Amino acid sequence: MPVNVLFSAPPALWSEYEDPLGRALSEAGIDATLSTDLPAEDVDYIVYAPNDHMSDFTPFTRARAVLSLWAGVEGIVGNDTITMPLTRMVDPGLTQGMIDWVTGHALRHHLDIDYFLANQSGAWKPKVPPLATDRPVTVLGLGELGAACAQALAGLGFPVTGWSRSPKSIDGITCLHGDDGLAKALSSAQILVLLLPRTPQTEDLLDAEALNLLPRGAVILNPGRGPLIVDDALLSALDRGAVAHATLDVFRVEPLPADHPYWAHPQVTVTPHIASETRPASASRVIADNIRRAEAGEPLLHLVDRARGY
Amino acid sequence: MPVNVLFSAPPALWSEYEDPLGRALSEAGIDATLSTDLPAEDVDYIVYAPNDHMSDFTPFTRARAVLSLWAGVEGIVGNDTITMPLTRMVDPGLTQGMIDWVTGHALRHHLDIDYFLANQSGAWKPKVPPLATDRPVTVLGLGELGAACAQALAGLGFPVTGWSRSPKSIDGITCLHGDDGLAKALSSAQILVLLLPRTPQTEDLLDAEALNLLPRGAVILNPGRGPLIVDDALLSALDRGAVAHATLDVFRVEPLPADHPYWAHPQVTVTPHIASETRPASASRVIADNIRRAEAGEPLLHLVDRARGY
Repeated sequence: MPVNVLFSAPPALWSEYEDPLGRALSEAGIDATLSTDLPAEDVDYIVYAPNDHMSDFTPFTRARAVLSLWAGVEGIVGNDTITMPLTRMVDPGLTQGMIDWVTGHALRHHLDIDYFLANQSGAWKPKVPPLATDRPVTVLGLGELGAACAQALAGLGFPVTGWSRSPKSIDGITCLHGDDGLAKALSSAQILVLLLPRTPQTEDLLDAEALNLLPRGAVILNPGRGPLIVDDALLSALDRGAVAHATLDVFRVEPLPADHPYWAHPQVTVTPHIASETRPASASRVIADNIRRAEAGEPLLHLVDRARGY
Repeated sequence: MPVNVLFSAPPALWSEYEDPLGRALSEAGIDATLSTDLPAEDVDYIVYAPNDHMSDFTPFTRARAVLSLWAGVEGIVGNDTITMPLTRMVDPGLTQGMIDWVTGHALRHHLDIDYFLANQSGAWKPKVPPLATDRPVTVLGLGELGAACAQALAGLGFPVTGWSRSPKSIDGITCLHGDDGLAKALSSAQILVLLLPRTPQTEDLLDAEALNLLPRGAVILNPGRGPLIVDDALLSALDRGAVAHATLDVFRVEPLPADHPYWAHPQVTVTPHIASETRPASASRVIADNIRRAEAGEPLLHLVDRARGY
């Protein structure tokens, strides 16, 4: 008997996912009916991204899991009608895309590439950066993405400190945790990468006090979540040179309004939430694998812990 | 009895090297007299970079080795008065610096960071690059620097092809060689990195014909040697869009003259020969280690093969 998979997401995504998800389910050996429109009581699995049509999961009486298309589930996790297991997306393509963005912008600032791009008028002025081995980088957040980026940066030679709420241990990374650990992690960060999830505990984490702990001239990369940063505190730190540059991919309001001071600030680079675009082909394989697991009675991967919020 | 080490290089280097080289010799357990001025017939080792004062090595009748301060020895290797062993610099710091420059500019072009830097006026226009895993990179030259950069790029996820004159085998790299191999290596190179030594065989290697083998829109990184590229052919390929961008660190004439078309070309980035600056501390340790080896009767590291020219 086929399993019924409901695809509930903003309409534009259906055209991107219909083919690769159908293919991935078939390749995983699942006899599935995949549709954007199924009677609620017949649905076995819900592939989900927040959308205007559905926020009440009560009618899905036999649904065995909600499988989020996004890595960030802060828009879903507070929904009390989701009583079945909830998984988030951990897309290997997404991890690779995040590694690309983080290592690329870390090296851009490390080498001061912006300086050379702005100095192409004929003056030969050698300016040699330190080696990566002499440029301490700190990554806040050691989940799937944070750990992968920390290891990629360490692989390039950077001395990398990682921080997470609970203790972790990762080869080649100096792992710190807790409040004392955070102060220490910030104090050595010539480049600071924010890859924490958005939770009540992480919101506004990078406030004036935290920014003051950074070494003078630090660079901030935020491909994580917009609300991790207190925007006014960051702008003030940039204006007085305490922070040399911020390259930001995520914001409290997206798209970032055209009149937001980040756009015009010469020490801020805005990228339009591109660091971790989920690619349909690899995301579909992750979802199909989880449905296969559930059908085989195996534990689901990437389950969300509702108490922690991610 | 102390060994006599002559330091013969442009004068500015003596102030940079006197302390670290003295320290490195002492740490290597060598009782050395280090000076810029010693009777030729008393000299045991010559630490050398081309300079105005010395090009005739005939008087150094008992010198056991010439130890080049530079990785590139094309200005030395043709000197017939150097009848003793000649070593070139393989500085671990230099390799790290080259990895920094190559991975940084490869990722800059891969992510199209220039596009985002030029689009900070308030328009939110997501533009997602492919993953590094879908961006083939080719490295020409698989010596110390080429092999290290190829492996660093592969570590970031790029599919890497390497090419060298003689066959090589490097983990994780598709290694090609010979003329047929070169055509194949060029034909897949969305990003092409030039790390060949300068020899009669490599000069003008990247001419109009070779450039025509690249996929349309390829990017060229040259941190190797200026004469590898036929400049007019590259400018022509850039002008007609066959090559999308060239980021060049080395040139036929350095400093690159202010009126050279590379400076003004919007698709060329000039960096002023900074990719592989030798750092005195690490270079001194390499030289001291080679003197220790010679004194202990061990083989010298990084010996130059005069026939090949590097």
